[in-house]
Amino acid sequence: MNIGIIGAGQLGRMLALAGYPLGLRFTLLDPAADASGARVGKCIQGAYDDPVKLRELAAAVDVITFDVENVPVAAVAPIAELKPFYPQITALGVSQDRLSEKTLFRELRIPTPEFHAVDSLDDLQRAIATIGLPGVLKTRRLGYDGRGQYRLRNAADCDAAWQALGGVPLIYEAWVPFSREVSLIGARSIHGEVAIYPLAANSHEHGILHHTIAPYRNSDLQQQAETYLKRVFKHFGYVGILTIEFFVLRGKLIANEMAPRVHNSGHWTIEGACTSQFENHLRAICGLPLGSTAPLGHAAMVNFIGTIPARDAALKLTGLHLHDYDKQPRPARKLGHATAVLPSPAARDQTLKKMLKLARQ
Amino acid sequence: MNIGIIGAGQLGRMLALAGYPLGLRFTLLDPAADASGARVGKCIQGAYDDPVKLRELAAAVDVITFDVENVPVAAVAPIAELKPFYPQITALGVSQDRLSEKTLFRELRIPTPEFHAVDSLDDLQRAIATIGLPGVLKTRRLGYDGRGQYRLRNAADCDAAWQALGGVPLIYEAWVPFSREVSLIGARSIHGEVAIYPLAANSHEHGILHHTIAPYRNSDLQQQAETYLKRVFKHFGYVGILTIEFFVLRGKLIANEMAPRVHNSGHWTIEGACTSQFENHLRAICGLPLGSTAPLGHAAMVNFIGTIPARDAALKLTGLHLHDYDKQPRPARKLGHATAVLPSPAARDQTLKKMLKLARQ
Repeated sequence: MNIGIIGAGQLGRMLALAGYPLGLRFTLLDPAADASGARVGKCIQGAYDDPVKLRELAAAVDVITFDVENVPVAAVAPIAELKPFYPQITALGVSQDRLSEKTLFRELRIPTPEFHAVDSLDDLQRAIATIGLPGVLKTRRLGYDGRGQYRLRNAADCDAAWQALGGVPLIYEAWVPFSREVSLIGARSIHGEVAIYPLAANSHEHGILHHTIAPYRNSDLQQQAETYLKRVFKHFGYVGILTIEFFVLRGKLIANEMAPRVHNSGHWTIEGACTSQFENHLRAICGLPLGSTAPLGHAAMVNFIGTIPARDAALKLTGLHLHDYDKQPRPARKLGHATAVLPSPAARDQTLKKMLKLARQ
Repeated sequence: MNIGIIGAGQLGRMLALAGYPLGLRFTLLDPAADASGARVGKCIQGAYDDPVKLRELAAAVDVITFDVENVPVAAVAPIAELKPFYPQITALGVSQDRLSEKTLFRELRIPTPEFHAVDSLDDLQRAIATIGLPGVLKTRRLGYDGRGQYRLRNAADCDAAWQALGGVPLIYEAWVPFSREVSLIGARSIHGEVAIYPLAANSHEHGILHHTIAPYRNSDLQQQAETYLKRVFKHFGYVGILTIEFFVLRGKLIANEMAPRVHNSGHWTIEGACTSQFENHLRAICGLPLGSTAPLGHAAMVNFIGTIPARDAALKLTGLHLHDYDKQPRPARKLGHATAVLPSPAARDQTLKKMLKLARQ
């Protein structure tokens, strides 16, 4: 079975590496000649919205998925008619627009920060009057890793925020004074089978995921999160891995956003769970039985952003699993990550400290 | 860093899959256009002894290794002058000839079955007179997975054995009435660092490894085996993974053969040990720190020979990790394997039963 992946970043790379042992083959599509994922599978070089290249991809494979969520829906819709395309374009479309996403959360009774569409400075002032301050003005589309966001602390920030982001469709959201950020990742297969990982607790720096610990054990939050995830699964008849990021506020979850794909906060599952998120995504879209999501210990995952430690230094840390994406270093670029799986939370926290030191070297 | 692998079978494939996360790149050389390993890395199509293709490989990479031990030493010697070549050609040469191998074992005081070189029917009769019966007549070269062997139970078998194998250099070995077969796998790096896995217990069918359980815990045998492995390491100043297969006879080890490469009886280390044999081989030949060989539980590995179970059936077994080599089925061909890692020997044995049933479907 040949899997087509639109995008050959590190997620496509890790999907392919997880899929080869299942006997799957991969063809990726990416505009970059030296894409990370292109080093581990056949790659068609082309833009994500190039209709000729997309048809070439579709012709070569049995099922299509993607590793970037900013794939233009209009461009990929025609190939979704040619071959099975998972997760579905409907889910992809909703997740690309923060307004649609939050509107869906509201429809599905999934708590989300108060929000207001903003298309003008007037709208912004109205949004602030309704929702209050502090808040965050965000672009509705193409925002990721903290880009396209402006935090407003008081009314005087209004003009600067509009100057910074105005001109494209925006959304104003209430600032949530959260105590913690967690994410839930689950898979739903073509046959409707569902497998959900334990929650992960995430720490961001400059808007980019910096490190994750998992499992984050809290049976009450786990239950809330699973209920919400299943509502989204049901709504779309979803197929593949779905991630929802939540704020934790006074013991309750508030959904921040969803990603219709494998997620950085699930990289710990490669070594830390019985079946990785990458393998379960492939099993889901190929209609195979889903694998156990049971954790194998207490995992810590640290991202290497902008710079990657020397292999020697990294591999000296006992039990550290390095994932070098083989990408050219650039500031704020995710170049790799490392995971360690320990027998206890205390041992994990101790190792996490060493890993964080390594990431900052 | 670019790694060259002579041979693109399943071992080359699994080496590449283990090496990508370290940021390594791979170029393989194989005569088959549809080689298993060629699906996961760049592959030069050519014979193992084609001097032009070998030089092309050497030019493309920083260090060279191999996934087949029957690479002709004379053919690869010139490229070992061009680029680091590990494990060393000296070790490769010795392991290709059962007589040299057993002579080395004897020199290094590693117990081995009594043996006698056989180049004529007279030699065979002399060997039987010296060593006795039962015994096994084997080709000195190119034997693997039980091929090139003839078991002699009584003197009357002598002519038939000679008829079957005569004409090439042979070796006659005493039959060892062993209670168990075990193997020890260890790595030695360029810098002399050594990391050794726990023993694995192996079961063969028709001369081919069928299944393995690991760790096989016996501190006395583990110590004996490590002592012997280290003698071979020291003798060659060895670099890479080395495997020695032993018979167990009345609590003592008798070395049967060695393989200067990652080994089928070490496939359990992918999920069952902190660092896999594939990753440690790459770390060793790249001069990186070796990874922990600690087992993560009790592993069972079953080979799929001649036929591979349907993915659906295999993946329904909870905790089973499938490794489909993506090879065309042929009788007696290794097409894949599966590993399960369980918390106790009893749980492992129970799962092993199910896996054996699966392998026979």
